[in-house]
Amino acid sequence: MHAYRTHTCAQLTTADVGQGVRLSGWVHRKRDHGGVLFVDLRDHYGITQVVADEDSPALPLLDSLRLESVVTIDGEVKARDAAAVNANLPTGGIEVFARAVTVQSKADDLPLIVNSAEDYPEETRLKYRFVDLRRERPHANIMLRNRVITSLRRRMTDQGFSEFQTPILGASSPEGARDYLVPSRLHPGRFYALPQAPQMFKQLLMVAGFDRYFQIAPCFRDEDLRADRSPEFYQLDFEMSFVTQDDVFDAIEPVLAGVFEEFSGGKSVTPAGEFPRIPYAETMLKYGTDKPDLRNPLVITDVTDHFTTSGFGLFEKIVGGGGRVRVIPAPATHEKSRKFFDEMNDWARKEGFAGLGYVTRKGGEFGGPIAKNHGTEGMEALYAELGLGENDGLFFAAGKEKDAAKLAGAARTRVGEELGLIEQDCFKFCWIVDFPMFEYDEDQKKVDFSHNPFSMPQGELEALETQDPLTIKAWQYDIVCNGYELSSGAIRNHKPEIMYKAFEIAGYSRADVDANFSGMIEAFKLGAPPHGGSAPGIDRIVMLLADEPNIREVIAFPLNQRAQDLMMGAPSVVSPRQLRDVHIRLSGDALETQAAASDADKTRVDQAGE
Amino acid sequence: MHAYRTHTCAQLTTADVGQGVRLSGWVHRKRDHGGVLFVDLRDHYGITQVVADEDSPALPLLDSLRLESVVTIDGEVKARDAAAVNANLPTGGIEVFARAVTVQSKADDLPLIVNSAEDYPEETRLKYRFVDLRRERPHANIMLRNRVITSLRRRMTDQGFSEFQTPILGASSPEGARDYLVPSRLHPGRFYALPQAPQMFKQLLMVAGFDRYFQIAPCFRDEDLRADRSPEFYQLDFEMSFVTQDDVFDAIEPVLAGVFEEFSGGKSVTPAGEFPRIPYAETMLKYGTDKPDLRNPLVITDVTDHFTTSGFGLFEKIVGGGGRVRVIPAPATHEKSRKFFDEMNDWARKEGFAGLGYVTRKGGEFGGPIAKNHGTEGMEALYAELGLGENDGLFFAAGKEKDAAKLAGAARTRVGEELGLIEQDCFKFCWIVDFPMFEYDEDQKKVDFSHNPFSMPQGELEALETQDPLTIKAWQYDIVCNGYELSSGAIRNHKPEIMYKAFEIAGYSRADVDANFSGMIEAFKLGAPPHGGSAPGIDRIVMLLADEPNIREVIAFPLNQRAQDLMMGAPSVVSPRQLRDVHIRLSGDALETQAAASDADKTRVDQAGE
Repeated sequence: MHAYRTHTCAQLTTADVGQGVRLSGWVHRKRDHGGVLFVDLRDHYGITQVVADEDSPALPLLDSLRLESVVTIDGEVKARDAAAVNANLPTGGIEVFARAVTVQSKADDLPLIVNSAEDYPEETRLKYRFVDLRRERPHANIMLRNRVITSLRRRMTDQGFSEFQTPILGASSPEGARDYLVPSRLHPGRFYALPQAPQMFKQLLMVAGFDRYFQIAPCFRDEDLRADRSPEFYQLDFEMSFVTQDDVFDAIEPVLAGVFEEFSGGKSVTPAGEFPRIPYAETMLKYGTDKPDLRNPLVITDVTDHFTTSGFGLFEKIVGGGGRVRVIPAPATHEKSRKFFDEMNDWARKEGFAGLGYVTRKGGEFGGPIAKNHGTEGMEALYAELGLGENDGLFFAAGKEKDAAKLAGAARTRVGEELGLIEQDCFKFCWIVDFPMFEYDEDQKKVDFSHNPFSMPQGELEALETQDPLTIKAWQYDIVCNGYELSSGAIRNHKPEIMYKAFEIAGYSRADVDANFSGMIEAFKLGAPPHGGSAPGIDRIVMLLADEPNIREVIAFPLNQRAQDLMMGAPSVVSPRQLRDVHIRLSGDALETQAAASDADKTRVDQAGE
Repeated sequence: MHAYRTHTCAQLTTADVGQGVRLSGWVHRKRDHGGVLFVDLRDHYGITQVVADEDSPALPLLDSLRLESVVTIDGEVKARDAAAVNANLPTGGIEVFARAVTVQSKADDLPLIVNSAEDYPEETRLKYRFVDLRRERPHANIMLRNRVITSLRRRMTDQGFSEFQTPILGASSPEGARDYLVPSRLHPGRFYALPQAPQMFKQLLMVAGFDRYFQIAPCFRDEDLRADRSPEFYQLDFEMSFVTQDDVFDAIEPVLAGVFEEFSGGKSVTPAGEFPRIPYAETMLKYGTDKPDLRNPLVITDVTDHFTTSGFGLFEKIVGGGGRVRVIPAPATHEKSRKFFDEMNDWARKEGFAGLGYVTRKGGEFGGPIAKNHGTEGMEALYAELGLGENDGLFFAAGKEKDAAKLAGAARTRVGEELGLIEQDCFKFCWIVDFPMFEYDEDQKKVDFSHNPFSMPQGELEALETQDPLTIKAWQYDIVCNGYELSSGAIRNHKPEIMYKAFEIAGYSRADVDANFSGMIEAFKLGAPPHGGSAPGIDRIVMLLADEPNIREVIAFPLNQRAQDLMMGAPSVVSPRQLRDVHIRLSGDALETQAAASDADKTRVDQAGE
């Protein structure tokens, strides 16, 4: 017989009744029914009920054990009484009568209870993550993450992509977010940086001729943390050669739709090949954001033309000054009180906007100051154009175009939520496309890149040479799901002459470009294919599928919101020898902090690796 | 028609003759046959011959292009003349007559030639790695690595393992090799460290109840570099719960044997389930090393007993002093000259040994000073015992046991190589088992751990309490293939009381253990399963399969031997602002180095990631 188990805790059924078996696992739950002890024995796979009574030599020892002790049970499979059968459990038809018990590990008092869904402070959960992870939901989340990543890999391989590892000890880049630095021992005063993304390397893999690359890539950004940010996170990084934007979409839609269908638990998913492609200008108008949640049926309309002349002087003034008026329908709000509308306005002010106007309507009757001033005829014309009915309200966001769009977008979300209009149980994908290549920078009074300077402009060199820069679009795209941006991507600019020209438009000389981007430019001068890609966030995908609002719930051993590993004690003080080895000293503020904390600091020593 | 290609450069065959096609790729080779231009067009998948003559408008442009330019060719598939058919190429039956050519990327002069196997200095190859990787062998190596890792993942999943990512921003550990440090911005004076291996985390995953973990895990060690060492390397890290050593072997043998069979290119591989298990004491005796190359048929024998009394005084003296005499057969060396034997002795002296004795034999006649002094009768008895014949020579390694074993081991390898005895075209695996738990430290005059203090001693607490420590073995094992150690592994000590006792034997108090290993000990006090694992080196596996002697040949973008990325310029100087942000300053030596180099340093700026 095996030293620890003949079966896992999820295997035994009534077919095994009468068998002698050996099980190992954690004491998940104990119930004492007057001399009969029931123990739920738990392992990774499931739970089996173990029972001991006064006939069992195992009773005293089992009885004495704390929850979460690890034991090996020798016993006999018995059918449960009909009344005790648990149909929800694969092993619910049987129990194991314990003949002998071997303690593999005695548990002390526990910092958190494993067999309950009780909430504990994150500090406790992360410090004792190895206990927290035994709990049902954290355990399931991490297994989900594993399955999602395995599925993503298989799907990418099926699409002809090959996975390569790019360096983690990389070069620091003054652009983008803050780098994590790694001082070099062999090169005094020099530093590696952990990659914010393997952007350069994946493009160089294309230049090296690998055609279709992907990687479940660890990325690092030393930014202030939020619920959906971790210093260390993973991307499904990919890049393809000899492709247009359509090819990128065709390659990745089946991967994303497929993995969401596989793990959505029955929620509907936008089918591959049918992801809507929404131009940037359109999404900013209709949804007030470049991350539209398409589960929300509400659509914003620009009604500026209705207010060039209006009894509602405020809007007339805004429109006269070049501003915009946007509206968000509030369907079937005839039964809503005035309070509902006023509270929306209050919310808008709290969010820092000037305020959210509204019109109420009940049985065809308009209400509210805008309607009153604008006049019934004007309102009816407006409603007719919007296709709204006699019981639909309307919210108004007015101001400079950017502000109006932003407020309208936020109001659309809030109205949708308040009215319960957000479609549940679905994942709605879309692409945002046709991002502008350039924008006018009001502060610097000049044309600048609006997003990524390294995307290929639509129309390439000819567009740059002949079009108004502010009308040029880029081959750049975002993937959005349920209002979350999963990633940006682009067809890259792989032609040095187009890159020089694009930078020239943004006010940079050829020398500037050579000085700052020589690595990339030089590579492109030695034979570069057209290429493009993207990098959907893995943690974000798992968060959506696990329905968790916090990235730390889908990472096995996350740093906390202060970027600390409470379990292993990182970051920690290191020895003067370690600092000397890499040619650095602590700055004054660090020394002070350290002196203050020195007594409190406990040295920890890890076991050497294999 | 697609913007770039209707087919890859490996797809077209005679079945496509007459078709209009579009291909994209690199200009791999050009041959001008008097007005007819042949271009080998290359992409990731293969090569297609493109032809243009004076009838083709594409000729002048194609003719003008440098090698490695990227082009799109519109043309027509034609059958090659019978004489021009290349049966070695999938596309060797056809060529594409070029009607039009579009230049996607003009190549400048190249730093290295892609279409040749010529050797270039590593500096050139790594600086222009994106060109080097287009070459046949580097390209094939990286694709092999990709396929090996994909196969390993699938095989691990098939064995019931789940892959989890463990943190890369971890805690520094004063044990083991030198850590790469990462200064913390949020915690002045504190540092993360990159993991040397995810040892603690994988054990904590077992304590968390995950049962079977694996990871293609990036590991980092700031050590001086050698051909088979990279600062950043990958392990097939795995760990299992409720297992004995046999279970670990049963789980991983099919994975390793399977992947080697899949990619060995026809070389034979030790079948899963048949990896020999060689106790540490036996391998040190028979092979003189714990990394035996079993392709070498020679086996060392201890013949000390033959020299307790001998006419060969040197050996008698060594044996009298407690030393050992070990022999390595040199079969069928009767035709070898005296020089062969003398050169072996010279080699041994050069390696720092006292010298390698020998006996020659030809037609039954012994030769050499040892035979002469030891006497024919003694030699014949010895040969009879060793089963050697009348034309076999014999080498002698004598000295203290450790020295004799080491010399015998090195001589076994050299004799095997010199005599051409190493079996080719095979991968021979074995396990080294039964490592001693403790050894006597001659310097400190005390018992100490001989390998890993965290392995479970065989016999557990009872052995520690009752046996002579120097006789206790550990559940610790190495996987060896063709003389290379692929990894160490162990059944872990998961019981605090056994850990305290083991450390006590090595002279450490309970307080020492608690102070240094509290994280692990505390976790084990909250319910830990018996567990064990290992971590075969991925780079080493790929090196063996690719038959490459240098780890950098199997890494897409390796650091050079001075740990520099010559392509991206890492490590680099960073801004004072970046240093301030993470509360460090450069030490005096770094500042001096930097001042000296400041003019030479070119700033590089990467493109921000997605």
